Amino acid sequence: MILSDEIKRGIKFVDNGLEKFLPSDKNYPNIIYKSMRYSVFAGGKRLRPIMLLAVCDMLGGELKKALPFACAIEMIHTYSLIHDDLPAIDNDDYRRGKLTNHKVFGENIAILSGDALLGHAFEIMACSVAQSGDIKEANAMKAIAFGAGLNGMLTGQVVDVISEGKSIDKNTLDFIHINKTAAMIKGAFSAGAYLAGADYKIINTLESAAEKIGMAFQIRDDILDVVGNVSELGKPVLSDEKNSKTTYVTLFGIEKSNNEVKRLSCEAIDILSDFGEKAEFLVELTKELTDRKK
Amino acid sequence: MILSDEIKRGIKFVDNGLEKFLPSDKNYPNIIYKSMRYSVFAGGKRLRPIMLLAVCDMLGGELKKALPFACAIEMIHTYSLIHDDLPAIDNDDYRRGKLTNHKVFGENIAILSGDALLGHAFEIMACSVAQSGDIKEANAMKAIAFGAGLNGMLTGQVVDVISEGKSIDKNTLDFIHINKTAAMIKGAFSAGAYLAGADYKIINTLESAAEKIGMAFQIRDDILDVVGNVSELGKPVLSDEKNSKTTYVTLFGIEKSNNEVKRLSCEAIDILSDFGEKAEFLVELTKELTDRKK
Repeated sequence: MILSDEIKRGIKFVDNGLEKFLPSDKNYPNIIYKSMRYSVFAGGKRLRPIMLLAVCDMLGGELKKALPFACAIEMIHTYSLIHDDLPAIDNDDYRRGKLTNHKVFGENIAILSGDALLGHAFEIMACSVAQSGDIKEANAMKAIAFGAGLNGMLTGQVVDVISEGKSIDKNTLDFIHINKTAAMIKGAFSAGAYLAGADYKIINTLESAAEKIGMAFQIRDDILDVVGNVSELGKPVLSDEKNSKTTYVTLFGIEKSNNEVKRLSCEAIDILSDFGEKAEFLVELTKELTDRKK
Repeated sequence: MILSDEIKRGIKFVDNGLEKFLPSDKNYPNIIYKSMRYSVFAGGKRLRPIMLLAVCDMLGGELKKALPFACAIEMIHTYSLIHDDLPAIDNDDYRRGKLTNHKVFGENIAILSGDALLGHAFEIMACSVAQSGDIKEANAMKAIAFGAGLNGMLTGQVVDVISEGKSIDKNTLDFIHINKTAAMIKGAFSAGAYLAGADYKIINTLESAAEKIGMAFQIRDDILDVVGNVSELGKPVLSDEKNSKTTYVTLFGIEKSNNEVKRLSCEAIDILSDFGEKAEFLVELTKELTDRKK
């Protein structure tokens, strides 16, 4: 299958970048490097960096120059998972079929490891911007910062945390999904487009596609928590029910949630299709995410 | 006293900047903004931003353009304090005479609040660089990232954490002090110099002064933990002894530690004096830090 070959190549390209941008765990104090590497190389799908690279490629940008930003977005994603899993937040023992960071390295190192990944992501981007002096890179960094911060992932996570055990309405759930999940996917699309030198109109168009893909991705996550397979997912199912968490499935049921995933994905594909043949990879990827099993 | 008037003016300038760059706590979800603001406005000395601004001013840079970077460095400093105080790390209940962030907002919000301050600091800097397209600003952002990250504060904190309850030698203690404390002061000097358009020679010279000031500052901290006054410090004294923590005082005693503070400060002042009259504020500040009471 062409798509899966391309994804495999993308993962390898990103993994090589991460290997290069993350200091060796031979460095002192090696526990922090071991801990960062443990979670970064725990088998993630590399979805956000692959999207960033695919958008950049589609618009004629240079993949090599985009690599630091792709790796930075994956480090930021990993930091958010490490901190989410902490006892004081979701208190999860497993992630992607492996023990969570704090179960292996202790809570103190897990907190610092998340901090280190967030800081290092910005350090890599700052180095790249300072070296190139390229305003396109500065804008890409800004887009990623927006996706991760108070206009994005961070506030989504805060509302998720303060909503725990409460019954919430669709507006609040949408706020969580848009910010916690879709904002970083939007950041990936936006950064990829900036790096390729796209104009604001194109960036806005792609951001609207990204938001739909991000929402569909998160609703699919809610569905998988009910119908998914533990061994494929690498984490327990029915955890939302156990934590009395409101999700798309608890609000609307499986069927309506499935329809919503399809509707959002179709709308995103419509937008992407305007970019013609070059958008083929992103269109196929969006289709595949619609009924992903993990 | 001229120095204290100038410091007051500096604090006001920085505080106005922080007020502007931190979103209002009327925003949703307001708990995160309240929590960030609680710790940022908890009465810090604003030492790092004032140093950044003073270096920039000394070298003829524009203070208004330096303000986002000064505020960013204070936000990064505040994030590090919030995470340091967490139960899983130092487990401190008081900081600057007030309850620590997690005692007021809970551990989950304190973790996210630290994350938010770190991310927001880089968001502010990235916005400034993207808007100005100025490579001097990109270099300042890089210098701050270095001070905060794996080449600086972060690894200092990691070694501090893994050394807890162990007896450590002078080399390890120096590693902690240089990285945990001096690296961010070096970052402040370096960023201030970059923003003023200084050349590498000047930046290196100022960095060496900054490192000495940072080391002297941390040794003075160790001394204050033994001879300080609880109400002036706003935190318990003798906490190092209670936590069986190796410090300059436990290794060398009060007198030798005092001499080391003086020696490092004099060396830093020697370096700064080469910049003539314009270095007066930084020279006076360094002198004042030598025998500060809090």
